Amino acid sequence: MTITITAFERSPDGGKGLARDTRVRWALEEVGQPYAVRLVPHAAMQAPAHLRLHPFGQIPTYEEGDLVLFETGAIVFHIAQHHAGLLPDDADARARAITWMFAALSTMEPPILELVIVKFIEGDKPWSKERLPLVLDRIRNRLGQLSVRLGDADWLDGAFSAGDLMMVSVLLRVRASGLLDEYPNLAAYVARGEARAAYKRAFAAQYAINAAPTPG
Amino acid sequence: MTITITAFERSPDGGKGLARDTRVRWALEEVGQPYAVRLVPHAAMQAPAHLRLHPFGQIPTYEEGDLVLFETGAIVFHIAQHHAGLLPDDADARARAITWMFAALSTMEPPILELVIVKFIEGDKPWSKERLPLVLDRIRNRLGQLSVRLGDADWLDGAFSAGDLMMVSVLLRVRASGLLDEYPNLAAYVARGEARAAYKRAFAAQYAINAAPTPG
Repeated sequence: MTITITAFERSPDGGKGLARDTRVRWALEEVGQPYAVRLVPHAAMQAPAHLRLHPFGQIPTYEEGDLVLFETGAIVFHIAQHHAGLLPDDADARARAITWMFAALSTMEPPILELVIVKFIEGDKPWSKERLPLVLDRIRNRLGQLSVRLGDADWLDGAFSAGDLMMVSVLLRVRASGLLDEYPNLAAYVARGEARAAYKRAFAAQYAINAAPTPG
Repeated sequence: MTITITAFERSPDGGKGLARDTRVRWALEEVGQPYAVRLVPHAAMQAPAHLRLHPFGQIPTYEEGDLVLFETGAIVFHIAQHHAGLLPDDADARARAITWMFAALSTMEPPILELVIVKFIEGDKPWSKERLPLVLDRIRNRLGQLSVRLGDADWLDGAFSAGDLMMVSVLLRVRASGLLDEYPNLAAYVARGEARAAYKRAFAAQYAINAAPTPG
């Protein structure tokens, strides 16, 4: 059955790979599954046809026969469950890898998303400049804890897993702020993720769409 | 094997059931699994012994033999996978239920957590009052989309699942703000969750600890 995902017709990041379809592309590349991409124009994100697939009007979505999924966590987990390569066979190790997926999305990403709010969404507000250091310190708190846990290991729990895929994807969002470089083991961890052939293919695929000159 | 979870020795909410151990208690009650609780004093949350269980120094954790998990999403999923009652048997319905777990934690909860930041963590800042309506509107945006998707259904995708357990738990965190009552179908959805016998047992168990008079 053909797998079809959705992505921005034009990603706000201009091809830096930070839009969430990159996470799904990466997972599909890791397990060697081909996929089709349907690009959703900005104006169509909140339209009924897209909201039927994604109730919160975001990308990516995942279609495979009659199955429609949204949420990158759920999509990557679905891919990992049905194809070898992203979750260990041992039951306990598998549960721990899934834990890291949730940790990436529920514990690491929320303070990182606040950076978008303070810098861009509320970037013109009078409090933006004074608030920024508070937001950065909340991110540092989480990065510091993750850095301690990772230590000098290559991946979070033994072999590379969907948990690392998700954590690296989330950490990539904070790199532009410079914070990641304050934790050399995390910077090296992210670089290990980016060095994977599957990540490179995923990045290149989204780059080809988003870095092209704007039409017209 | 005995299941042991951790909880706050004294929850900041004084027994309202908003601490995350309630979600795990609820899941264990739904599937009829007994469990032990180890209370973690505030001062011990960031101590090495607890950080070995939970790298981010939070509660709950989950121990079962040699397996140690953190993140409520991962713990509830683990429980749901090993015991009947929280995930449908049909593969597609199961993937959709897991999608709602991730949606609750990754899409609905982050804007709701911002409410804690603006009201309490940054409650003494000069921007707090002016920022509050912006935070509320971001929550309204998500509640509105969820309300449309739920419609007049009892649960998010057919039968009650771990996705509903997580979504109801997240929505309970916004009730005190009054926002939930702006969406009557969501308020009724949350009330349906609270009316479940398993939720009532979970709530009572955490209430017995947290609503007791402070010692000394």
